[in-house]
Amino acid sequence: MPNPAAAMLVIGDEILSGRTRDSNLHHLAGELSRHGIDLREARVIPDRHEAIIDAVRALASAHDHVFTSGGIGPTHDDITADSIAVAFGVPIRVRDDARALLEAHYARTGQHLNKARLRMARIPEGATLIENPVSAAPGFSIENVHVMAGVPAIFQAMLASLLPRLTGGTPLHSITVRINRPEGDIAGPLASIAAEFPDLSIGSYPFVEQGRYGSYVVLRGTDRAILEAAEVHLRNVFGEDAA
Amino acid sequence: MPNPAAAMLVIGDEILSGRTRDSNLHHLAGELSRHGIDLREARVIPDRHEAIIDAVRALASAHDHVFTSGGIGPTHDDITADSIAVAFGVPIRVRDDARALLEAHYARTGQHLNKARLRMARIPEGATLIENPVSAAPGFSIENVHVMAGVPAIFQAMLASLLPRLTGGTPLHSITVRINRPEGDIAGPLASIAAEFPDLSIGSYPFVEQGRYGSYVVLRGTDRAILEAAEVHLRNVFGEDAA
Repeated sequence: MPNPAAAMLVIGDEILSGRTRDSNLHHLAGELSRHGIDLREARVIPDRHEAIIDAVRALASAHDHVFTSGGIGPTHDDITADSIAVAFGVPIRVRDDARALLEAHYARTGQHLNKARLRMARIPEGATLIENPVSAAPGFSIENVHVMAGVPAIFQAMLASLLPRLTGGTPLHSITVRINRPEGDIAGPLASIAAEFPDLSIGSYPFVEQGRYGSYVVLRGTDRAILEAAEVHLRNVFGEDAA
Repeated sequence: MPNPAAAMLVIGDEILSGRTRDSNLHHLAGELSRHGIDLREARVIPDRHEAIIDAVRALASAHDHVFTSGGIGPTHDDITADSIAVAFGVPIRVRDDARALLEAHYARTGQHLNKARLRMARIPEGATLIENPVSAAPGFSIENVHVMAGVPAIFQAMLASLLPRLTGGTPLHSITVRINRPEGDIAGPLASIAAEFPDLSIGSYPFVEQGRYGSYVVLRGTDRAILEAAEVHLRNVFGEDAA
């Protein structure tokens, strides 16, 4: 059975304006690889209702899972939860269990659960909460869409809460071999190796170090034995240039 | 006249597998903001023909410009140029001016212009070359799609070659004010300020520092006078908490 397919939706003007460098995609990609879920696509879109609704619908219909980050805080620009509710055609309102999480958190930290903060307890009907051990305000899963915070520490904590719930497939393994020759020199032999190992994805990534060109060759696949056979073959072909 | 709208397409299995952290999106976003081109969306897709063709067509029809990164090197997994040619229904072949650039570069560096490297001179019919001062192999623009390398130093150099050719709009300016209060406390007043300044985009980004919560408020807009008026207003509202 093939691994489940996933997409990520990064929601936030601050990424598209260049103010903030997204780091959640990289974290999610690594975690999903280890969990045996294939990340097939990622999109970054602004904090706009129609953009969120359109992207969620498109990605949710084409993938087993969609992971979103951003736009679920207490301020006026946090419109993700409302947009997701529209995308699935369900109402959204303050939910008792989510409110209880916030009440406990703010009582503990001596802060006031005001109207703005209470917005974070608004959950689309039929959703399952995703625990947030950092700052209490929960994420949620609705159908195959998992809605999480944009702040990296909170995104990571929510993902750690969520992942054990999701059925994974075969983890993707990878072996990286450094070849001390420029990409253009190794391209021919590498194409032959790729043809011999059709089950693997073989990528080549050039680098420059102290003015000398080299290439990292990355072998990726789910079967360790095949990966190791390909590595042996690769090292034989490139001899002393393989480090 | 509104600013031109743009999308970015990041092409590369290595980003989706978690091996590599993309940095070209962040660089492009900042450069486009300064140039007055609005980045509206970004997508990350794998090195697969159909994925590239579909995404290029979808993004090119919906935006004034599409910027791509990745997949134009000499190896078997570099399939971007071929996919773009298919997306626009034009032939692709080695072009004399691109080959001359490679011949000069490899003659200078004492390397051999072999068959794999010559692939980098294959350019879709009707395209305009984008100069690559780092490693010679050019990018290209075809209609409204600008195809560049994935290696960050080369992507940045190509973008610097390309941008002066593109008509920009009004640069987006931003002012960031640090408020030493948690997001939930400032959300109410901030929503009022956002309503008073409908021409600005006002975002709020929480932070935690030595266990204390605060918020960066970012005002964005094209008119400096309006931005400064909003900043004065914001500082008045939050008084000593605004740093």
